[in-house]
Amino acid sequence: MDLVKPGDTIGFIGLGIMGKPMSENLIKAGFNLLVHNRTRTRADEILEMGAQWRDSPIQLARECDVLVTMLSDSLAVRDVVLGEKGISKGISKGGVVIDMSTISPKATMEISEKLGELNVSLIDAPVSGGVAGARQGSLSIMVGGDEDVFQLVVPALEAMGSDITYMGGSGSGQKTKLVNQIMVAVNQNGVAEALVFAEKAGLDPNKVIEACKGGGAGSFQLQNQGPRMIEGDYSPGFMVKHMEKDLGLVSETSEDIISPLPFTSLASQFYRALMAEGKSEYGTQAIHSVIRRLNSIEPN
Amino acid sequence: MDLVKPGDTIGFIGLGIMGKPMSENLIKAGFNLLVHNRTRTRADEILEMGAQWRDSPIQLARECDVLVTMLSDSLAVRDVVLGEKGISKGISKGGVVIDMSTISPKATMEISEKLGELNVSLIDAPVSGGVAGARQGSLSIMVGGDEDVFQLVVPALEAMGSDITYMGGSGSGQKTKLVNQIMVAVNQNGVAEALVFAEKAGLDPNKVIEACKGGGAGSFQLQNQGPRMIEGDYSPGFMVKHMEKDLGLVSETSEDIISPLPFTSLASQFYRALMAEGKSEYGTQAIHSVIRRLNSIEPN
Repeated sequence: MDLVKPGDTIGFIGLGIMGKPMSENLIKAGFNLLVHNRTRTRADEILEMGAQWRDSPIQLARECDVLVTMLSDSLAVRDVVLGEKGISKGISKGGVVIDMSTISPKATMEISEKLGELNVSLIDAPVSGGVAGARQGSLSIMVGGDEDVFQLVVPALEAMGSDITYMGGSGSGQKTKLVNQIMVAVNQNGVAEALVFAEKAGLDPNKVIEACKGGGAGSFQLQNQGPRMIEGDYSPGFMVKHMEKDLGLVSETSEDIISPLPFTSLASQFYRALMAEGKSEYGTQAIHSVIRRLNSIEPN
Repeated sequence: MDLVKPGDTIGFIGLGIMGKPMSENLIKAGFNLLVHNRTRTRADEILEMGAQWRDSPIQLARECDVLVTMLSDSLAVRDVVLGEKGISKGISKGGVVIDMSTISPKATMEISEKLGELNVSLIDAPVSGGVAGARQGSLSIMVGGDEDVFQLVVPALEAMGSDITYMGGSGSGQKTKLVNQIMVAVNQNGVAEALVFAEKAGLDPNKVIEACKGGGAGSFQLQNQGPRMIEGDYSPGFMVKHMEKDLGLVSETSEDIISPLPFTSLASQFYRALMAEGKSEYGTQAIHSVIRRLNSIEPN
């Protein structure tokens, strides 16, 4: 396979809340797109932008050497790639699947091995940066898989992200995403705990953010989620149910590699408290409401 | 009292690792300094810069309307301010004590009340930014006490810090410092846990920092302490024993205001593990070594 460049045809499967804006950025960058999605209506806009619809992954794979998947979980990726009407049944030797979903590193390595038997490569390339980053094409992309193959698909990744890091062999992108989520989850809980303590101590939490954000306590979470927590704005950027899923993958992987994670485990329980309340589609910053309740402060 | 300005005389008590560079910045800004310290030799350099020595807090207080204290703990501040040869025995009505130590908010409020009976004001103004910030005059200063009095001493604070936030009544500066330490402690542990997980998962932790620092996982701790953790550079910026002390104050205050702190409590136990190993004078980033050992990775 040669270096992927604008004008080439790419297959895109999974037009969800992230996949839709990502596929739009590929079109805008000049790629031809063939698309498929479980629910066809989700494709209306991208078809208007010039993409073409195909009825199944296998059909799509017959016409493309490079396919992107952006799906909900390991099972969905396994089905779309290896299933009866899956990509693997249609793709040519030398083809590349770029899986940008966040799934289990173990599942990634297994799928990569199966594709390898067909001389097809899997690049794992999960993202962070949320819907805003997907729209702006400014996602962070953490990449695992064969480095030479990765180099060939960089132009496609650059249409979707601004910060692309090659991490190592198959699964390394997924593992890096999990490390990222560990830091997000623990720090988000720490910020919430600190802001509730501040409130209970009679401080103005907004002034606390001002006083602390420039120093050793400074973080993306404090600066961006802190003000939302204080306002009780729990609308999603990143949903609780997706954090729950990601922390499940962290837990599974930590079991595989035998890595004890005291802080992440605790964080996990607090997101679960939100799940228990039926707040799975709230933004993760709603963790603030759990800690407020723990402090017997009136709910927002 | 009038607005404090260069040329005025300020008393400075406590020439420790932080107090020494802070007092030097007052001299450089043009203030006349009278100094006192438990160990006189610590004053050699500041005396060469033009400060004058006094043998006790009471002597010093007789000649100054504004005094700065930078001491190790609540007991030391209480003794220097209210003790037999303390500031309160020599200071004139209308005088101001600026306590820049990190001590208990409760002790601060008690000392403030005692001084109030003598018509003397206490401003609590703890700092963050460590020795580097103290040297560069770029400390963050979190201020509590009477706002009008605070305004009168701003020029002195500006000689030592670049980021000065008035937080509210007496003790509010100390409370804000505690909130700051909660966020530092929890996030530092989260970063360490994530980097050790990365290491155990076979990733290059340096690449992980590169891939994650610009997104939702980004923080001062990741960017500044992360690389030190990876190198096993546990030299102090901020010492474990000082974090232990600060988290003790957090615990005491959380008991007073009845605020449960699950993440901070857990963080506290990990710093205590460092204390148990005799590493009280290591930098707090040594928490990384505790989590590595928990993962049965060889010590650095």
